[in-house]
Amino acid sequence: MRIKPGANTYGKNAVNLSRIIRHEDYHEFRQVSVSVALTGDFDTAHTVGDNALILPTDTQKNTVYALAREHFTGPIEAFGLTLSQHFLSRNPQVSQVRVELVEHLWQRMAFDGAAHPHAFTGGGSEKRTTVVTRTAAGTTVVSGLKGLMLLKTTDSAFVGYPKDEFTVLPETTDRILATECEASWEYTSAGLDFEVLHHRIRQSLLRTFSEHKSLSVQHTLYAIGEKILQENDEVKEISLIMPNKHHIPFNLEPFGMANTNEIFVATDAPFGYITGTVTREE
Amino acid sequence: MRIKPGANTYGKNAVNLSRIIRHEDYHEFRQVSVSVALTGDFDTAHTVGDNALILPTDTQKNTVYALAREHFTGPIEAFGLTLSQHFLSRNPQVSQVRVELVEHLWQRMAFDGAAHPHAFTGGGSEKRTTVVTRTAAGTTVVSGLKGLMLLKTTDSAFVGYPKDEFTVLPETTDRILATECEASWEYTSAGLDFEVLHHRIRQSLLRTFSEHKSLSVQHTLYAIGEKILQENDEVKEISLIMPNKHHIPFNLEPFGMANTNEIFVATDAPFGYITGTVTREE
Amino acid sequence: MRIKPGANTYGKNAVNLSRIIRHEDYHEFRQVSVSVALTGDFDTAHTVGDNALILPTDTQKNTVYALAREHFTGPIEAFGLTLSQHFLSRNPQVSQVRVELVEHLWQRMAFDGAAHPHAFTGGGSEKRTTVVTRTAAGTTVVSGLKGLMLLKTTDSAFVGYPKDEFTVLPETTDRILATECEASWEYTSAGLDFEVLHHRIRQSLLRTFSEHKSLSVQHTLYAIGEKILQENDEVKEISLIMPNKHHIPFNLEPFGMANTNEIFVATDAPFGYITGTVTREE
Amino acid sequence: MRIKPGANTYGKNAVNLSRIIRHEDYHEFRQVSVSVALTGDFDTAHTVGDNALILPTDTQKNTVYALAREHFTGPIEAFGLTLSQHFLSRNPQVSQVRVELVEHLWQRMAFDGAAHPHAFTGGGSEKRTTVVTRTAAGTTVVSGLKGLMLLKTTDSAFVGYPKDEFTVLPETTDRILATECEASWEYTSAGLDFEVLHHRIRQSLLRTFSEHKSLSVQHTLYAIGEKILQENDEVKEISLIMPNKHHIPFNLEPFGMANTNEIFVATDAPFGYITGTVTREE
Repeated sequence: MRIKPGANTYGKNAVNLSRIIRHEDYHEFRQVSVSVALTGDFDTAHTVGDNALILPTDTQKNTVYALAREHFTGPIEAFGLTLSQHFLSRNPQVSQVRVELVEHLWQRMAFDGAAHPHAFTGGGSEKRTTVVTRTAAGTTVVSGLKGLMLLKTTDSAFVGYPKDEFTVLPETTDRILATECEASWEYTSAGLDFEVLHHRIRQSLLRTFSEHKSLSVQHTLYAIGEKILQENDEVKEISLIMPNKHHIPFNLEPFGMANTNEIFVATDAPFGYITGTVTREE
Repeated sequence: MRIKPGANTYGKNAVNLSRIIRHEDYHEFRQVSVSVALTGDFDTAHTVGDNALILPTDTQKNTVYALAREHFTGPIEAFGLTLSQHFLSRNPQVSQVRVELVEHLWQRMAFDGAAHPHAFTGGGSEKRTTVVTRTAAGTTVVSGLKGLMLLKTTDSAFVGYPKDEFTVLPETTDRILATECEASWEYTSAGLDFEVLHHRIRQSLLRTFSEHKSLSVQHTLYAIGEKILQENDEVKEISLIMPNKHHIPFNLEPFGMANTNEIFVATDAPFGYITGTVTREE
Repeated sequence: MRIKPGANTYGKNAVNLSRIIRHEDYHEFRQVSVSVALTGDFDTAHTVGDNALILPTDTQKNTVYALAREHFTGPIEAFGLTLSQHFLSRNPQVSQVRVELVEHLWQRMAFDGAAHPHAFTGGGSEKRTTVVTRTAAGTTVVSGLKGLMLLKTTDSAFVGYPKDEFTVLPETTDRILATECEASWEYTSAGLDFEVLHHRIRQSLLRTFSEHKSLSVQHTLYAIGEKILQENDEVKEISLIMPNKHHIPFNLEPFGMANTNEIFVATDAPFGYITGTVTREE
Repeated sequence: MRIKPGANTYGKNAVNLSRIIRHEDYHEFRQVSVSVALTGDFDTAHTVGDNALILPTDTQKNTVYALAREHFTGPIEAFGLTLSQHFLSRNPQVSQVRVELVEHLWQRMAFDGAAHPHAFTGGGSEKRTTVVTRTAAGTTVVSGLKGLMLLKTTDSAFVGYPKDEFTVLPETTDRILATECEASWEYTSAGLDFEVLHHRIRQSLLRTFSEHKSLSVQHTLYAIGEKILQENDEVKEISLIMPNKHHIPFNLEPFGMANTNEIFVATDAPFGYITGTVTREE
């Protein structure tokens, strides 16, 4: 059996770009990490080291900074569309361009109710994300968020599961539910108002998480996805990753105390890892 | 020269404790990481392996959870005072107890202006901190914050520095100033309203950062410390760590473009590391 | 369009398991992180919160520790096969079990040429990995390694690439080539000597990396994959991820010095991200 | 009370420097992270923003790369001495220079017993360290290592400790002892053969860890320090940090199994944090 190249891709990752958008009397500040991935006709680079069709990743990086000057002024989806268009149209050897943008979010400071014109706080674990994938056949935009830490102190249960000889977990009708939520939803089109949609979908996610009478992480995950699809025709389907950030009641009985669901150990590992997609009937 | 034990200390680190404080119609949620360090007469443990005076770190951990039930209901400083008192009073071999608490901050969700009774978001890099150090001679409380990401897009300069043959950096009168601020201030007493003081000092820090016409990181660091001391008699001195999170203008000239102070590379390494204490004349 | 569950899976991640295998006059020490993922008929858990078919992730964790006692004595692939068989055979609602094992490698200490019976050093970034995927239709074993830091100081070039207006990178015939290699290869069968094969394949990878006259990362990646397939009929195909850990010559010219390819800046971001699969003609 | 500057220092951290040392028929490869910290007369920078005495951290960085060309050819201690001398002698406003170097260790590949001339593997968590501190009054060299993962599967006990109402931990005469060791020792002089000494001290550390009949982490920590002082007159004192990386027996009893000290949970938090210094009688 002859040996041959299979699927392959390459590009520049972690192009960390900051920008100031200067208005007359205030500044916007934006910070993103951009990753470009090209797929195409690169077999001879692999097999004989011919780089004639390999656009250097250094050039990709420069292109991101150069195009940012004119084109990175709105939502990350718009900039991803520009970048993917640039790379696809200029490189006939490339069959697919994938541009991923992760935005670090900065909040404008405010004092006594007045927004400050140029000072910001940052550092949240939540990132806004998009992946724009472009081929000759079309373009998909899958946007979302990650690192969103959610927690509720009640309205979460887990009962009725199968038991076997390795079961120790007690059933509970009142536990902490906490997760570091990652969500990514596919838009039905590349021509939407991504700014409005992002905030509307995120708000729907938060509200459903807070209001849901959760019978399991899966149950809440689905409720979130279902609500987002119900309220947003622009979303084709949504995938959610909701690891279970366990807060386990600490056993105070050896010390003659009752733990009335108040004192918990927060653990990092191991953790339940719950993923799911909510979609529409064809 | 005889060989002998020098300074030593031990304790349990990273005791990750979550708690729900249950009110009639809403819950509070708190999450801290507690570290205990004991100093004292432990020489025989080191030299001959006699553990008769070594309170196990596992017991320290249990004590944190057990005492949390009754005593962790207010600011971290209060809980640190309780824990340090417990360990010092019960262990005559211990000459100093140091309790460090790092609080992970959770924000109550709100919808349509209404606070939710039991749902929260978290994940900010900013932590609230305190170190309570107790000996027979007295107790000090050094509180602060860390991981506070601050950025301003203007009102920051750096000129007038010495030049030598290794100087490349151009002077600038308008640059991005960004830092991950760590501050720790010593209180004059262990009997203060730590909750009010924390928020007042933090606000003073933010406001000074935002308003200052910065001539260097050092200049801003001192201005912040000075303002906090001016406004808070309860603060004896304050130390600040303000690494310079560089945002470097990307050179667009090779591409025939001007970079009018808009497009930056955000770098992690190397970084300027600026530290300083602001104190009071004796 | 009706809304409905799409693909979903769940399980326990990061089950951190250590074991001592006690021989008469020496010990083995093994440390792995196990992740279990179940796919199957879980729609009612999502849609109505019925957990009757949801084997708790806590039970999955217990099962890993319990089965480790008898079954985790050989290569991680063997333990993965045992675990996947257990979960698939006992849970008719589960259509696919995926077990991932990541092994932390410990080296036995040796003094004056003599292996120590029970003392070890660890801490390497390289991990040994396997993913066992089992369905009623069959079982695949995809093994590999990750975190393997490789570097060569010469025999690496990058020339002949396309230039455009965003090209700055100079061609070079002598650069540092460094990568954090991740490799995963699919075995042709679940009944092989995985211990011998792992070490043979790893050695082939190292040797090819060191000897190859590299014209690009892609070129070296393919050479490694090709050699492994040539030498190991038991490997069906192999995928490699080889990020380019750039070491960039530091510009000493402003200081009147030549940098004769000796002094470099090691950077973390951005980085080239090169991936590829090498496979066999059907 | 007048407000005034207290202690302060600044410098460039994380200057990541790689170098090739080219010999006729083989290469050496070295990788270090350098941090420079200057203390001195910087009050006017803090109080009025006068940078006339502030050597920019960017210049410090350039100096590290420029001096590396001629001077970074031997142990990190020698390069630290050169750098500290440069900064102290050229900046009269500086009263103390502290240079910290952390070396990433690369191992030369070997095949069939033959060392490869230019290919290396890296990635170990263990780093070699030094801190050179220079003032007009003299120079100290404190060298060491960090990230050294050590584990032994027996010859470790913990008994005889005090019990109170929060004690749950059972005494044990046979447990896993694991730590991520950090050691730093002060040399008696700046004119020693640091290369030979580093390897001799490290070997002494490993051997003592492996052979010691440990009655506690403290006991082993002291034994290591004592042995190093006994065998090395060039070491004035040594400090060790040995966090207890707990491996806790997993409770198999609920499943009708005995855990004969074979199956363990490896935990990250909380952890015992044991530190100590071993010194010489004056």
